[in-house]
Amino acid sequence: MSNKIRLGILGGGGDSLIGVLHRVASSMFDRYEIVGGVFNPNYPDNVAFAKKLGLNESRIYVDFETMIVEESKLDKDERIEVVSVLTPNFLHYPMAKQLLENNFNVICEKPLTTTYKEALDLKKIQEEKNLVFAVTYTYTGYPMVRQMTKMISNGSIGKIQKVDAQYLQGWLNPVIHEKEKRNSTWRLDPKKSGISCCVGDIGTHAFNMVELVTGMKVKSVLADLNTLYDDNPMDIDANILIRFSTNAKGTIRSSQIATGEENNLRINVYGEKGALKWEQENPNYLYHLTDDAPMQVLKSGHSYNDEISLDGTKLPPGHPEGIFDSMGNIYKGVARAIRKETFQDAEFPSIDDGVRGMDFIEKTVESNSKGNIWIELNN
Amino acid sequence: MSNKIRLGILGGGGDSLIGVLHRVASSMFDRYEIVGGVFNPNYPDNVAFAKKLGLNESRIYVDFETMIVEESKLDKDERIEVVSVLTPNFLHYPMAKQLLENNFNVICEKPLTTTYKEALDLKKIQEEKNLVFAVTYTYTGYPMVRQMTKMISNGSIGKIQKVDAQYLQGWLNPVIHEKEKRNSTWRLDPKKSGISCCVGDIGTHAFNMVELVTGMKVKSVLADLNTLYDDNPMDIDANILIRFSTNAKGTIRSSQIATGEENNLRINVYGEKGALKWEQENPNYLYHLTDDAPMQVLKSGHSYNDEISLDGTKLPPGHPEGIFDSMGNIYKGVARAIRKETFQDAEFPSIDDGVRGMDFIEKTVESNSKGNIWIELNN
Amino acid sequence: MSNKIRLGILGGGGDSLIGVLHRVASSMFDRYEIVGGVFNPNYPDNVAFAKKLGLNESRIYVDFETMIVEESKLDKDERIEVVSVLTPNFLHYPMAKQLLENNFNVICEKPLTTTYKEALDLKKIQEEKNLVFAVTYTYTGYPMVRQMTKMISNGSIGKIQKVDAQYLQGWLNPVIHEKEKRNSTWRLDPKKSGISCCVGDIGTHAFNMVELVTGMKVKSVLADLNTLYDDNPMDIDANILIRFSTNAKGTIRSSQIATGEENNLRINVYGEKGALKWEQENPNYLYHLTDDAPMQVLKSGHSYNDEISLDGTKLPPGHPEGIFDSMGNIYKGVARAIRKETFQDAEFPSIDDGVRGMDFIEKTVESNSKGNIWIELNN
Amino acid sequence: MSNKIRLGILGGGGDSLIGVLHRVASSMFDRYEIVGGVFNPNYPDNVAFAKKLGLNESRIYVDFETMIVEESKLDKDERIEVVSVLTPNFLHYPMAKQLLENNFNVICEKPLTTTYKEALDLKKIQEEKNLVFAVTYTYTGYPMVRQMTKMISNGSIGKIQKVDAQYLQGWLNPVIHEKEKRNSTWRLDPKKSGISCCVGDIGTHAFNMVELVTGMKVKSVLADLNTLYDDNPMDIDANILIRFSTNAKGTIRSSQIATGEENNLRINVYGEKGALKWEQENPNYLYHLTDDAPMQVLKSGHSYNDEISLDGTKLPPGHPEGIFDSMGNIYKGVARAIRKETFQDAEFPSIDDGVRGMDFIEKTVESNSKGNIWIELNN
Repeated sequence: MSNKIRLGILGGGGDSLIGVLHRVASSMFDRYEIVGGVFNPNYPDNVAFAKKLGLNESRIYVDFETMIVEESKLDKDERIEVVSVLTPNFLHYPMAKQLLENNFNVICEKPLTTTYKEALDLKKIQEEKNLVFAVTYTYTGYPMVRQMTKMISNGSIGKIQKVDAQYLQGWLNPVIHEKEKRNSTWRLDPKKSGISCCVGDIGTHAFNMVELVTGMKVKSVLADLNTLYDDNPMDIDANILIRFSTNAKGTIRSSQIATGEENNLRINVYGEKGALKWEQENPNYLYHLTDDAPMQVLKSGHSYNDEISLDGTKLPPGHPEGIFDSMGNIYKGVARAIRKETFQDAEFPSIDDGVRGMDFIEKTVESNSKGNIWIELNN
Repeated sequence: MSNKIRLGILGGGGDSLIGVLHRVASSMFDRYEIVGGVFNPNYPDNVAFAKKLGLNESRIYVDFETMIVEESKLDKDERIEVVSVLTPNFLHYPMAKQLLENNFNVICEKPLTTTYKEALDLKKIQEEKNLVFAVTYTYTGYPMVRQMTKMISNGSIGKIQKVDAQYLQGWLNPVIHEKEKRNSTWRLDPKKSGISCCVGDIGTHAFNMVELVTGMKVKSVLADLNTLYDDNPMDIDANILIRFSTNAKGTIRSSQIATGEENNLRINVYGEKGALKWEQENPNYLYHLTDDAPMQVLKSGHSYNDEISLDGTKLPPGHPEGIFDSMGNIYKGVARAIRKETFQDAEFPSIDDGVRGMDFIEKTVESNSKGNIWIELNN
Repeated sequence: MSNKIRLGILGGGGDSLIGVLHRVASSMFDRYEIVGGVFNPNYPDNVAFAKKLGLNESRIYVDFETMIVEESKLDKDERIEVVSVLTPNFLHYPMAKQLLENNFNVICEKPLTTTYKEALDLKKIQEEKNLVFAVTYTYTGYPMVRQMTKMISNGSIGKIQKVDAQYLQGWLNPVIHEKEKRNSTWRLDPKKSGISCCVGDIGTHAFNMVELVTGMKVKSVLADLNTLYDDNPMDIDANILIRFSTNAKGTIRSSQIATGEENNLRINVYGEKGALKWEQENPNYLYHLTDDAPMQVLKSGHSYNDEISLDGTKLPPGHPEGIFDSMGNIYKGVARAIRKETFQDAEFPSIDDGVRGMDFIEKTVESNSKGNIWIELNN
Repeated sequence: MSNKIRLGILGGGGDSLIGVLHRVASSMFDRYEIVGGVFNPNYPDNVAFAKKLGLNESRIYVDFETMIVEESKLDKDERIEVVSVLTPNFLHYPMAKQLLENNFNVICEKPLTTTYKEALDLKKIQEEKNLVFAVTYTYTGYPMVRQMTKMISNGSIGKIQKVDAQYLQGWLNPVIHEKEKRNSTWRLDPKKSGISCCVGDIGTHAFNMVELVTGMKVKSVLADLNTLYDDNPMDIDANILIRFSTNAKGTIRSSQIATGEENNLRINVYGEKGALKWEQENPNYLYHLTDDAPMQVLKSGHSYNDEISLDGTKLPPGHPEGIFDSMGNIYKGVARAIRKETFQDAEFPSIDDGVRGMDFIEKTVESNSKGNIWIELNN
């Protein structure tokens, strides 16, 4: 019997993209074995899909409550150790809550919940239970994001004085201009999607990245959201001013109507001694600028990178790795945490990151609805 | 005797960078001949420099007032037709005023004046006198900026819904962190530089570019300026939210403490049907994005470009042209205006652009000082 | 019991990079299950490693001959269906030969063998047995390589008139200049590595890519190889002129002493109607040039791509995929071939590609040793 | 009276592109004044054009012989000091010859002559007369080409082991495929163009750049030229193997049928300690690679550049300069040579560069016509 971590999965069946991403990521370092789950709300589809994955029929469950009950009956060295929650947003909270209460570690897709209150509640339980809880801000697993984080914390660019972050997409553009389409898309339905579309879905990624790489907390936000049309209240574009607890200021710009943009997440951090720039669509490069030396272009896999960056690179320099590899690195870190091996916090985003993200979403919407005023985030 | 336009120059002597830029630009299309001027406040230096340029000693003047008086005495087909004002900012207004009043056409460096009020005053005189008046926002002369402007006005990207502009420099970084240095640089002295450093010097460029290429007016601004240190009131970094008269929103971010950045002016305009992106540091490229066709990379000099773009390209595609060529195109347009030849407004920035720029600077500073609130620009 | 393809593996244990690449690739589409193998010549290490992968001890074999014997005894629906051969080059031939003779499908690392003669021999057996045989030229699995191939075969760029290919690395540079180092590296030992170092290892990749994307066969080669030092006969740099059966000519340049280069494989194909350019280090882009329209930049995942390209992309545009994903696509194609599902030849490189590669290596070395003359390849 | 250098011009009238390039270049540093010339073989056109430039009618000549005679009669401090020869290739030799014989310095467009023999003859006269003679390989004036040359001569990349150069254009593609067009273009007529089209026009640029930046001489060449069609003997595509007097080898690839390429001149030089890469279409960047440090991207105008590079940059970093500025730098160097000021050889290409270029063209064609064999260049 292998010593792999026994992984359960909720959601991600059929043609689900997020499902592929998590399954490939979990297999990447030979640390996990998928042993049970509920991949699809339709039971026959669920069974068919799970069999394709090679699961034992006894552990293909009818719903997540049953999974929790049945798995809890199994021997400790047989039952699921960690569950990946890949369901629609509003299900994250009830599922994660019960999983924690029943002593399962959790890997949860972002956004963590649909409200800040729910997020705080989850965090409380997680702390009581002292379980591993990861929130999959996927992009944080890229080797050059890790390198950027490490270089900033090591003082390579000095005290931070300016941050410029963006996450630009254009996919809503063909939807937003037709009344029927824009009022039938679930993303633009507050009941299904929460109080924010653009900030909730991608602005949070940029926010998380900003706090991760700078090692600083955003103190307050001033947001100007755009809806384009009056008949739908959901933001689809956001220009957000941010301030840190220090003198440093910056912006987070996110959009789903930046026509022609795909997944253009970028973060530039400017310090007294230098700057670092990174782009998600060309993730294996990191640009290091200083006042008067030539710009340096760091690439993943080189021995000049920090060990946490190198730990996230499987092949030598020049062999491009991508988003599956990034998520794989997150799963690798979680595996170490579950097995009580040595790991660094920066190896995977925690429930704290999820909680911060929910606070950011709510404060951004509040700033906009109150007429673009500064709103402070909670500590 | 040649039929070249007789050009006078105020300022730009010695090692002045702006002087080289204007002289080379004026010579580029064989339209101008420098015949008189005051290049340097020190008379012997002035004479020595002007002689190097080949000027007749009789037209090397002791100061600009003398130049105006003496040149006005000359025959109409001998005297200076247009004067380039390249002196420090606070001299633009008095010089341009007297030049206009004495019937000289004017080419003036930006910012037009040091206050909005002065700018309006100049505009009033210029209108009464019906003289040619160009403000040298240099970057507007690039062929691909012209192409961008034309494509947007032709509807290539449809109705504009988002604008994202930046002008990032880092040159103040080595200055700002030392108290003595930051309080002895003229750029950071409000008496010499006006009420704004960063917005006044480079934010205005981005603002002008935004209004030029979109063909729209910014209706209101909300600005968060940064000074980094309390002992100097001048902004060195600015994050500005902008709104247009339509639904469209955007940002202008400008900085002089974006460590390692050189002259990183970029403008992205997103419309319903597509987007256009341009970068000053690689000026011969224009990126055209749409929802689901491959991105197109336009290059200067190709026959697919509009004639106003091609008019600004001297050699076939693949021969890089730069900032001298861009300024040369502005001078070419001004020559046509002076000689009453056919030209398009987009060939050079007018006094209106200068006036708008001054309004933008003052409103931005007002927004910041009032606590980051929306301030409307004048029509 | 799952219906996954039962995969055996020879080699790739321990920290082997090629091992990780194949394991991750095999798991990517939930088509394979690793059930047996010999990962390491040292039996205890082999067992320890295989257990980590979750293998049943009964199918961790002492050597490949035993594996063949024992697996052949198993029921048809239990025994290994395909074996990945990841061992050093000189073992490819004996292993692949016995595997074929005992009716196992084969996935073999490149180069196929150490001589052209061996390659022909393998091909003969493979044809007689009618088994699936893939040679893992990894880069051919990239979505934009597939798109390039398809566009050329569809006539997008017209008749080909010029091909310019390169594969530049610099990793041997720190080795080659020290006599002791260069004469102790196995890559530079003809007994272990065959008659060629640089052409054998990476020139063949470029050659394979050239023939794949153009759909044409290289007719003859003229090669100038470089050894830098006289005390080692192995080529470490190669400039190769190529001619196709038509008028088209080109070059393949490959090097292991291109200091600072990592894995810089590029291929440019110029036709009467247009050109296509692709670079391995930024693999999700394909550049389409024509005489006088803007260059088009195609990206993976867009619906404008051919279905064979889209079949190799798991996530929407803007989510970078890399070399693991490329190899995953090859494994996916092989799975279809094994399961007699519909597939296209371009989904994975065949034994024919392996045979061509061996001919290319031998002819290139022959051209050089005979004084840089043209040598024809076999049909 | 100014102390500018009195410049005469032969050719370059009307809409001539080369005429604009030289005129702008000559004016860039206020060192030259155009005082006489023959711009057009048609005298009335010549006069009209020259007047537009502001020339005195007495110095607008009917032909170059008359110009030489008449200018020679003028006082030494009035007569033309240097003549720019911008006429079609076959006129370079007779014009330059007489100019030298009559003691005029010469700036001559490339190729220097139409045969190697003529080139040697010119060099003989130039040496006897000890006059300044520049051959305008325009691209050598770029600041980052100068920086590259200096870094290599300073040992930054160590001993050179590999050179990879290309000059790819596609402009002949729409011409070559139609029999009538290809046999009526002067470029493809050996009587007008010399024995080579592609190598003569652009291959020589790449060759000159290779010898300039490496500081080494190409010892021998092996060329495979392409004509595409049998009814025209002129090469339109060339793949050339090169060897230096040391162990270093490389290629020069040039083409006029690389469909979609514009002016894609690139040169990569790999040494024991590092590599340098430069591209003409983005000329303000220089890429410095080493075995295991991040790539450095040098930009023009920075103080880390050598003084000969900085001397060729007029504005601070981030203000793109282009091909006019590059030619301007060549004219600046020539001015210093004429005025006996201090200058470095690398400031402008000499008659030696012109002679080497002619030898390269003839030896390349010889190699091809003899069946792609190695041919040695003269020392």
